[in-house]
Amino acid sequence: MSDEAGVLAANGAFYAAFADGDFGAMDGLWARKAPVACVHPGWPPMQGREKVIGAWQGILQNPPRPAIRPFGEHVMMLGDVGVVVGFEIIGNVTLVATNIFVREDGAWRMVHHQAAITDRTPGSADARRSLH
Amino acid sequence: MSDEAGVLAANGAFYAAFADGDFGAMDGLWARKAPVACVHPGWPPMQGREKVIGAWQGILQNPPRPAIRPFGEHVMMLGDVGVVVGFEIIGNVTLVATNIFVREDGAWRMVHHQAAITDRTPGSADARRSLH
Repeated sequence: MSDEAGVLAANGAFYAAFADGDFGAMDGLWARKAPVACVHPGWPPMQGREKVIGAWQGILQNPPRPAIRPFGEHVMMLGDVGVVVGFEIIGNVTLVATNIFVREDGAWRMVHHQAAITDRTPGSADARRSLH
Repeated sequence: MSDEAGVLAANGAFYAAFADGDFGAMDGLWARKAPVACVHPGWPPMQGREKVIGAWQGILQNPPRPAIRPFGEHVMMLGDVGVVVGFEIIGNVTLVATNIFVREDGAWRMVHHQAAITDRTPGSADARRSLH
């Protein structure tokens, strides 16, 4: 499997764990040696595995857990680091996410996730706003 | 200079180029060999140096250019990749950003920027929302 395919598979496993509410899979997906961080929409950034995993536990184990579907993923390889930029659909809301993976013990493990609500999908007009 | 300090210096140079409207500095800061991407708030994701730099040219050279001030940066090192998560103040709006840098030709160069409007700063309550 190419590095790109491996990173996209890990990215898919992240969304599958999210969709399935599978906390064990989510926990296993995040890096254990490399530093980790996470920015959920509407939350302040979190740093460190304990905080990041604790937040996922709350999200995945406390209903209502929103359905989630990824699309439009684009991967960039930077040696042993892979970056996936893509969209997420949660209910009627579209988000854009940056997911970062690192090669750790032969597996691609997550080190960072930032998701933010957007109204700009690949098919929408490339309108320019004044706010950078 | 430590890797962390080098990455934070590059992150500072990014915001200085933004604040100063210095397109030459901004252009020089982005990687030339590694793949690049950028997600501005309210825009669809952009991939590739030509699109990313073209957008920065529009932002920096077409008034009104918003004032910008970074704060609360946190850096994570992943070998030859550095990730900075931090806040940006643009006018009365607070954004949270993920900035990714790669070591290229002995310099830390930018490969990705995602910024999104947030109402959660380090001092704000860690309120939980249902939207992950």
